[in-house]
Amino acid sequence: MRVTVLSGGIGGARFTRGLLAHLREVAPDGAGGTTAEVTVVANTGDDVWLHGVRVCPDLDTLMYTLGGAVHEGQGWGRRDESSRVSADLAAYDVGWEWFTLGDLDLATHLARTQWLREGLTLSQATERLCRRWSPGARLLPMADTPVETHVELEDGRLVHFEEWWVRHRAALPARRFVQVGLEDAVAAPGVLDALTTADVVLLPPSNPVVSIGTILAVPGIRDALATTAAPVVGIAPVVGGAPVRGMADACLRAIGVATTADAIARHYGRRGAQLGDDARDRADRDVTDREALPAGVLDGWLVDEQDRAAAESLVGEGWPVTVTDTLMRDVPATAAIAAHALALADEVRRRTR
Amino acid sequence: MRVTVLSGGIGGARFTRGLLAHLREVAPDGAGGTTAEVTVVANTGDDVWLHGVRVCPDLDTLMYTLGGAVHEGQGWGRRDESSRVSADLAAYDVGWEWFTLGDLDLATHLARTQWLREGLTLSQATERLCRRWSPGARLLPMADTPVETHVELEDGRLVHFEEWWVRHRAALPARRFVQVGLEDAVAAPGVLDALTTADVVLLPPSNPVVSIGTILAVPGIRDALATTAAPVVGIAPVVGGAPVRGMADACLRAIGVATTADAIARHYGRRGAQLGDDARDRADRDVTDREALPAGVLDGWLVDEQDRAAAESLVGEGWPVTVTDTLMRDVPATAAIAAHALALADEVRRRTR
Repeated sequence: MRVTVLSGGIGGARFTRGLLAHLREVAPDGAGGTTAEVTVVANTGDDVWLHGVRVCPDLDTLMYTLGGAVHEGQGWGRRDESSRVSADLAAYDVGWEWFTLGDLDLATHLARTQWLREGLTLSQATERLCRRWSPGARLLPMADTPVETHVELEDGRLVHFEEWWVRHRAALPARRFVQVGLEDAVAAPGVLDALTTADVVLLPPSNPVVSIGTILAVPGIRDALATTAAPVVGIAPVVGGAPVRGMADACLRAIGVATTADAIARHYGRRGAQLGDDARDRADRDVTDREALPAGVLDGWLVDEQDRAAAESLVGEGWPVTVTDTLMRDVPATAAIAAHALALADEVRRRTR
Repeated sequence: MRVTVLSGGIGGARFTRGLLAHLREVAPDGAGGTTAEVTVVANTGDDVWLHGVRVCPDLDTLMYTLGGAVHEGQGWGRRDESSRVSADLAAYDVGWEWFTLGDLDLATHLARTQWLREGLTLSQATERLCRRWSPGARLLPMADTPVETHVELEDGRLVHFEEWWVRHRAALPARRFVQVGLEDAVAAPGVLDALTTADVVLLPPSNPVVSIGTILAVPGIRDALATTAAPVVGIAPVVGGAPVRGMADACLRAIGVATTADAIARHYGRRGAQLGDDARDRADRDVTDREALPAGVLDGWLVDEQDRAAAESLVGEGWPVTVTDTLMRDVPATAAIAAHALALADEVRRRTR
């Protein structure tokens, strides 16, 4: 089985870790792994140059989480981290004192930056970094060319997403997000293939605006999702009408979407909803319409038990919805959520046959 | 009094620290410093890009030593250093495991690299770094444009100087040194002025080939030294016919110069020796001859008591020479050496008046 996941940082990484735990259970390879092939397409819109090194927050959170090196308490960065370098940089009055640059994490950035400067693509550098961590999944950046999300504040100022997110804790009202480099971005090698040849595509409870939204905006990716034969199932990134962690509500507010499970599902859009169940018709229609209106990308949606009303509203509109406990408390709980997502994908597949 | 020092790393840094101690004693400014203005022109030929950061070994050794931050035991790098980043980089199988990149030192490189990438010159970045360390002297790179010393081995291979020096401990016989970027190098702002307006110019016991030799080869610097009205006095970098530390003998061998106090003095050359004592004549002659033969740069030479025979040989040729204990055991001993050098400069000045 081939599973492709579109992911931001912490939420997507934890979800994928649970997914891999589930797959090792139901599709073991006899060597402690799984026969399933999992590909993760990571958002790189949060990437930033810091002190001359290239920092890729989501790729690294994925790599560390899946590779068993993550700082569990934080959800990002390395276990047993220290900050000698950044403390000394601060003594030079340099840089962003609000952006933690751990010593071990810095080694990752330095290695990546060296390879990038030697001419490797981000995909190639990511693959090399992953040799050390054996994440159990193939990690792909959404694009090899730089895309950087900036936030336009209400006073018109543009700040890098990381500055808005980390320094200001998303507290400055955002007017919109501007993704520098996005229009010319090309999906990284393997990304479109991973979507079109997948058996299942999953959208974990990552930020629907600046994480998954950015991935979907890379030219070609939304179309690939809209037309793939694989069912596409997502997990609502809210529990009880609020983000479990992070500040997705501030991002949703900026684009005029309510922080509710049903509003987010409608924002992603249902694949070919108006077109019945014929996959070919759907595909033709989406290609025709893509200039007018973004094609919907979801076939099914997992909603938390605390958001039953939202779920019922979607079911009333014909959405395939599973209501379950979606809180990723630990790896077993997350594996169970992944199992529900795969089951919903199966159900969607059966319905459309 | 204006004193200008041409310096490599450890030897030059320790000498300059002793010089400053002496000047604080004989020319105190009443606030713990000195009224003398000391400018150090540092070799940058050992500079190297490592993991995407710009490492400037000699500038940093000077800055740390004069700023009281140096690792005394090593003579270079920072006190209380650690190596978490480099250990983690090694786990990525990246880079030069033989080149220690300490965590605190790395902060210096990262700060400098960030400023260089922002468009500052190396001079400007050095000045900013020095704000933190207050070295008590003005540190100038010999040039703002990159110059990198490579070593041509006997089999024709070219390796970066740091690789030859640090990795191979200068044990691979060198055929010659190739300074990439030297021909187009321009002395950094302030360097030529510091030579032409100095009251005294000192050549500390730095490596005469790859440290001071590289500085002298920057277009304009040798001429400025040959023509400055200031006496130029050097300290022989050998004691008992051997380098005190480092592997200068391997460098001297490559250029066919014996590791003796007299051979090194002759290699530097005596200023206008053939031309008597008229400084104007000397200057004219040097300008005329500079294409044919490098102009001599020394007026006087400090030689260790263990090298009396070498000293006598130079005295026989008319060189002003002081024989003294030149071993830089500690700061007071080094201050005494600096005092001898300044005294010899005075003597030279009196003689040429």
